[in-house]
Amino acid sequence: MRESDLHALIAAANAGLPKGVMVPPGDDMAQVAVEGGSVLVACDQVIEGRHFLPATPLELVARKAIARNVSDVAAMAGRPLACLCAATLPSDMPESAVRALTAAIQRHAQDLGCPLIGGDTSWHGEPGHPLQLSITILALPHATGRVVRRSDAQPGDLVVVSGALGGSFGADGMGRHLRFEPRVRLARELVDRFGDRLGAMIDVSDGLGRDLDRIARASGMALLIEGDRIPVQQGCSLDQSLCDGEDHELAFTIRGDAAGELPPSMAGTPLAVIGRVHAVDERQPVGARVFLAGAWHAMGSMGWEHGPAQGA
Amino acid sequence: MRESDLHALIAAANAGLPKGVMVPPGDDMAQVAVEGGSVLVACDQVIEGRHFLPATPLELVARKAIARNVSDVAAMAGRPLACLCAATLPSDMPESAVRALTAAIQRHAQDLGCPLIGGDTSWHGEPGHPLQLSITILALPHATGRVVRRSDAQPGDLVVVSGALGGSFGADGMGRHLRFEPRVRLARELVDRFGDRLGAMIDVSDGLGRDLDRIARASGMALLIEGDRIPVQQGCSLDQSLCDGEDHELAFTIRGDAAGELPPSMAGTPLAVIGRVHAVDERQPVGARVFLAGAWHAMGSMGWEHGPAQGA
Repeated sequence: MRESDLHALIAAANAGLPKGVMVPPGDDMAQVAVEGGSVLVACDQVIEGRHFLPATPLELVARKAIARNVSDVAAMAGRPLACLCAATLPSDMPESAVRALTAAIQRHAQDLGCPLIGGDTSWHGEPGHPLQLSITILALPHATGRVVRRSDAQPGDLVVVSGALGGSFGADGMGRHLRFEPRVRLARELVDRFGDRLGAMIDVSDGLGRDLDRIARASGMALLIEGDRIPVQQGCSLDQSLCDGEDHELAFTIRGDAAGELPPSMAGTPLAVIGRVHAVDERQPVGARVFLAGAWHAMGSMGWEHGPAQGA
Repeated sequence: MRESDLHALIAAANAGLPKGVMVPPGDDMAQVAVEGGSVLVACDQVIEGRHFLPATPLELVARKAIARNVSDVAAMAGRPLACLCAATLPSDMPESAVRALTAAIQRHAQDLGCPLIGGDTSWHGEPGHPLQLSITILALPHATGRVVRRSDAQPGDLVVVSGALGGSFGADGMGRHLRFEPRVRLARELVDRFGDRLGAMIDVSDGLGRDLDRIARASGMALLIEGDRIPVQQGCSLDQSLCDGEDHELAFTIRGDAAGELPPSMAGTPLAVIGRVHAVDERQPVGARVFLAGAWHAMGSMGWEHGPAQGA
């Protein structure tokens, strides 16, 4: 059983949701109508031994837990509003560590624009069970009301990615996955500048390959990527840039007629055009493919597939 | 370190929250402003070995996880809107069980009025670690806009409790904690009938003693309870009705001048007047106290204190 199978199972019930659910399961966040407006909401967790190693400073664990949720807000071009934290603590966690963790969650939530407004704390019943933080984030849509989804790629769109990819989760458990800057400002400026000419968007959390394939499938399009244009993080291989995940950069599409207006960087972050969106036909089935070493390769299996068989 | 210490730590930062946070940490749910309205939000988790025993059918685990969040909505007299689920699964959980659990969460969420709109699924990295479900619930305030808080008890109010209390978590791990009906309809009808003459409200989750003491402290009042008027669940002792918790009944106050209008039951649930709210003075310090066996006893330590030292 893989997480993608579960997602399919959950999305199968989307048709039965009430119409106040404006964006159902299957995107970076859900959107629900609230009298007079709407709210975006998502949750994501970090588990010791899975998303961080036991020796990781609590300060950085707290930051990662919040920041990966804020990155989902960026993917929808939303404005962070508030967060909640359900924490499960090891039964023998020292009181000083519990206090330090709580303070770190509050501080990073505040710094990242989503103050902590609620939650729940439990302790494991048995020793040796892992620390776990589950964060729920609330956000408002962009001031224009535009909510950028995975499903809005159109034929002729350019495929663009921010920053450089690969090697986020270092061999020692440290690395950029603990310190990345969620691209909230970049996303806002993209909507400000391109409006409806901004197409689909996702944050790169499970690997560029898998995440671009999600845009392709949600949009019913073929994404053709040129391998040699992918911005590779210094010291990483191209393979790592496609598969590693936890980059939390943004991958998005803009309409072909906006190509000339795309600057080399926005909000302090370099932007790279890496491919194009094509309509699906017999020769171009739905999905993302990358041209590497003289051949096209399906990208859907490049990256992190959540499931019981993989380690951290 | 107890959860109440953590709550104090978190609430200490309330003054620094933006003014869009209309109800800050310290109540059953938080309330945040959204353009044109507001949304209530809370999260609560269930952990194997802590909130349910390993042999408990997944169907009932899913129901409990959702229902205890819906009970928080009832405590604010809100209307359930939607929920999200962050699940952490044992590494060896069979695929059929994962599918059954997912379906059960969806079904109970739908049945309890808060369809599942998002979430996250992870698997533990090592075998033997417990199943855990963290549910976040969104709700709208009562149609009148009234949000019933813990802090609205006033001198002269009657203290009322619904249903009968005690023995919810059976010795075999089964019992009412897996099957209780959240009192959403009762709460709505209380606001419909009493309006602003409904005072403070809480759902009884950690024991009547501890939860009434929370109303007393949030309101800055003395709650004086007559022990022999507490509705005790059949087969339970009075001590159990005060301390067991997980009843998920409502405890609330109504203004003294509404006393004559309180029916013996509402929304199919019996109501019992068990005491009265008094202003604090030198002889009556803040807190809830119960008259038992000829003497007054402080209620604040009667019930479930979350912390690492207690078992399930």
